[in-house]
Amino acid sequence: MMIKVDLNCDLGESFGAWKMGFDEKIIPFVSSANIACGFHAGDPVVMEKTVALVKRGGAAAGAHPGFPDLSGFGRRNLAMSPAEVKACVQYQIGALDAFCRAAGIRLCHVKPHGALYNMAAKDPALADAIVDAVREINPRLVLLALAGSRMVLAAREKGIPVAEEVFADRAYEEDGSLVSRTKPGAMITDEEEAIERVLGMIKNGTVKAVTGRDIQVGADSVCIHGDGEKALLFAEKLNAAITKEGITIVGLEEICS
Amino acid sequence: MMIKVDLNCDLGESFGAWKMGFDEKIIPFVSSANIACGFHAGDPVVMEKTVALVKRGGAAAGAHPGFPDLSGFGRRNLAMSPAEVKACVQYQIGALDAFCRAAGIRLCHVKPHGALYNMAAKDPALADAIVDAVREINPRLVLLALAGSRMVLAAREKGIPVAEEVFADRAYEEDGSLVSRTKPGAMITDEEEAIERVLGMIKNGTVKAVTGRDIQVGADSVCIHGDGEKALLFAEKLNAAITKEGITIVGLEEICS
Amino acid sequence: MMIKVDLNCDLGESFGAWKMGFDEKIIPFVSSANIACGFHAGDPVVMEKTVALVKRGGAAAGAHPGFPDLSGFGRRNLAMSPAEVKACVQYQIGALDAFCRAAGIRLCHVKPHGALYNMAAKDPALADAIVDAVREINPRLVLLALAGSRMVLAAREKGIPVAEEVFADRAYEEDGSLVSRTKPGAMITDEEEAIERVLGMIKNGTVKAVTGRDIQVGADSVCIHGDGEKALLFAEKLNAAITKEGITIVGLEEICS
Amino acid sequence: MMIKVDLNCDLGESFGAWKMGFDEKIIPFVSSANIACGFHAGDPVVMEKTVALVKRGGAAAGAHPGFPDLSGFGRRNLAMSPAEVKACVQYQIGALDAFCRAAGIRLCHVKPHGALYNMAAKDPALADAIVDAVREINPRLVLLALAGSRMVLAAREKGIPVAEEVFADRAYEEDGSLVSRTKPGAMITDEEEAIERVLGMIKNGTVKAVTGRDIQVGADSVCIHGDGEKALLFAEKLNAAITKEGITIVGLEEICS
Repeated sequence: MMIKVDLNCDLGESFGAWKMGFDEKIIPFVSSANIACGFHAGDPVVMEKTVALVKRGGAAAGAHPGFPDLSGFGRRNLAMSPAEVKACVQYQIGALDAFCRAAGIRLCHVKPHGALYNMAAKDPALADAIVDAVREINPRLVLLALAGSRMVLAAREKGIPVAEEVFADRAYEEDGSLVSRTKPGAMITDEEEAIERVLGMIKNGTVKAVTGRDIQVGADSVCIHGDGEKALLFAEKLNAAITKEGITIVGLEEICS
Repeated sequence: MMIKVDLNCDLGESFGAWKMGFDEKIIPFVSSANIACGFHAGDPVVMEKTVALVKRGGAAAGAHPGFPDLSGFGRRNLAMSPAEVKACVQYQIGALDAFCRAAGIRLCHVKPHGALYNMAAKDPALADAIVDAVREINPRLVLLALAGSRMVLAAREKGIPVAEEVFADRAYEEDGSLVSRTKPGAMITDEEEAIERVLGMIKNGTVKAVTGRDIQVGADSVCIHGDGEKALLFAEKLNAAITKEGITIVGLEEICS
Repeated sequence: MMIKVDLNCDLGESFGAWKMGFDEKIIPFVSSANIACGFHAGDPVVMEKTVALVKRGGAAAGAHPGFPDLSGFGRRNLAMSPAEVKACVQYQIGALDAFCRAAGIRLCHVKPHGALYNMAAKDPALADAIVDAVREINPRLVLLALAGSRMVLAAREKGIPVAEEVFADRAYEEDGSLVSRTKPGAMITDEEEAIERVLGMIKNGTVKAVTGRDIQVGADSVCIHGDGEKALLFAEKLNAAITKEGITIVGLEEICS
Repeated sequence: MMIKVDLNCDLGESFGAWKMGFDEKIIPFVSSANIACGFHAGDPVVMEKTVALVKRGGAAAGAHPGFPDLSGFGRRNLAMSPAEVKACVQYQIGALDAFCRAAGIRLCHVKPHGALYNMAAKDPALADAIVDAVREINPRLVLLALAGSRMVLAAREKGIPVAEEVFADRAYEEDGSLVSRTKPGAMITDEEEAIERVLGMIKNGTVKAVTGRDIQVGADSVCIHGDGEKALLFAEKLNAAITKEGITIVGLEEICS
């Protein structure tokens, strides 16, 4: 049996005169691109260029909606109501989809960003709001969400495709949630260890939690970063290690089909 | 032969806690609604509600993209490049279309707002940018633009449907442009005169310019307002006068088909 | 001994083309105006006009800083760090102070708005951040804060003047906090009862909590509203009732001196 | 007689998660810092940090107000009314002044940014609006403006101190205006030539226009850049060349006193 996995990365996080990320350099190593939609990062010109880059690079395009918090980069919890979240997510999906349509490519997935991602991972009402937002626009769009999270549950309940995401550089609690960055041991800093963990998650569906116990985790997609030299080198290494293991790197639609 | 005309109005101009317009009251009198898309007015929650209102009211939904200038309500000229204008217009069309898709209705037209409308009426590069923005997303979307303007020319050259818009309350120069609001006689304040002018434009395709000379003007659609008691009463009167004249009020798609 | 109280109201909450509130009508009934500073409401033009109105009306001018959340009117909790809150509050105080200096009046007080007010009432780190923001700019500025809140404590610890605020239309928990609007009985809807409660708070420093028990509450200032006909009538009635009782309505600087 | 000149640079142009410029590295070479105020760049946290850096570096602090156009970095012409410009400039001066007061340093000057700078250099109404904005807040604040521009005239007419600014890397028209960047020869790319031109402007008050004719130009301050390795090296070279020539580099207040 062929083992498949998706590699995803956040792209298009520049804004106006401000540049961020090494989008051109990371694109060869990913199969899915989460493209910022203007609320926490990105602007219409950046979005248009990023969609063109993703098309050239052959990755699948996804919307990466965030809270309307440009100065906080969407990383600060914001107490929006589920109805507000739903409308904001639909707005951003539609905006990105316009550039996909204009470029003649298909919008494949939606991955909430930052604080919205983290809050909806735990809050059923926000998870439902996001799933409803996606489903009402196009029930074939894949939701990309934290493995084992409320978003995954909500997507399954409401019948839209969902891909579970794991992190190479983060430690896990026994319940499958990420160890908070404020705690010691939250980050996996040893690259070999990180790669071993990812391969284990993909092949066996398990990872060692911060407590030492093995836990189950769905690994449809691995989140990687392109925001520095070190991150780019690691992305290349991880991509090579996965390929060497005989695992096929494919987009989310093939994962979820 | 049946004479047809569209009546259009700007809707969804509230923002957050701020209310604007009498959307519920004007909707019975219009066949097309230009819905603000969040750059000069409107926000995701307002857009969702406005699309629902337009669906209930039976009007056709259109995107009303403007400059990214919330504090200026999109009424101040902004020297965006054609590439920036194109991307901003696509972004806003996509955002509104998401709510239309979620509501199960079709996005029918695009009418630029305020300063963008006025600048693109005269500037061929901006007119082209807007037409390209629309065409790349969906070449069947109707562009609603000032009668005789550069936008009308650009749409015809590039082969997308276009509807020419006239104003009941504005005087015209001999070249078909609107008399600047800073000049005397710019506004038609007498309601009976305004209605007579509109009927003449629809039936004969002519109107008396501010110089006294009759000029030709395309009147596919008449712009009306819903931002006050007086405006609402006039909208009702105008709608009744048009109907009484045997003219059929229909949406833009039927006008342009 | 003369009993004194301040009456405060939020002003300058319009933004761009959107109007809010009846600033001209409420100004005769208040001694202190909390002027929005552009982050949750207000814009530079509105701020300039509001400062001019406050000067004409003879009320004292205060800054009303809020979260950077225009679409949420500053009413949604936002997880800013204390350092971010401090900088945002200083920014807004400075911006409003510019208009006061230009108008030749003095900035007298600072009252945080909405979610920032509520969060800082309970969170010592945010309360400290706000007090530090005020003190570093001008240690004679009065902080206007919920009676008995963390902000009041922080101001006293750090030695800046503070005025305790009470609400005519809100019920109190036994610990002096406001009953959440989501609970029954949160609002005092009977006007006579509201006025009686306010007079009791001013004269005796006590109010009946929602549990029926009398609690102590500092009533240096009473918050009133000017956002509707009913609110305006109540403001007039409350002002008259206070005056009739022989209580003197004065600004916060006299309260705190 | 001692010849004096100011060297100024734009600082604090980062925003939220986005970094811009090498503020730490350019500060040793300048005597005046123009600090972005949040409308085209900068945010409250960045402003606070930049004021601290300027204080440590011993440069004079100035406000660098721009159009409310974050996505365009304040570089796009925006048709604000003079009244809107005045209010926006006062808002931004006040906001920056708050951080100066909190840091215990004095705000020394105001230099409009980008499109606002360029428009006000030619438009008397905008120039007056900016001068009024400055004067109403503090008539001792120095206005830093394009040599020979309308802003310089307006400041002199209204009696506030003004410093004339020249550019090392730009060619001049015979009327003293800058050659538009869209024209050939607009930029002085040879570093030795640029330095010679600057020394000539400071010592003789003349420069060779693009036509070849010598014109007069006031050179109270030279604008330098810190946005790249090359710019930093040039700033160091220019600073050294000026010092070697026996010219004293001082702040604007000493220039204007």
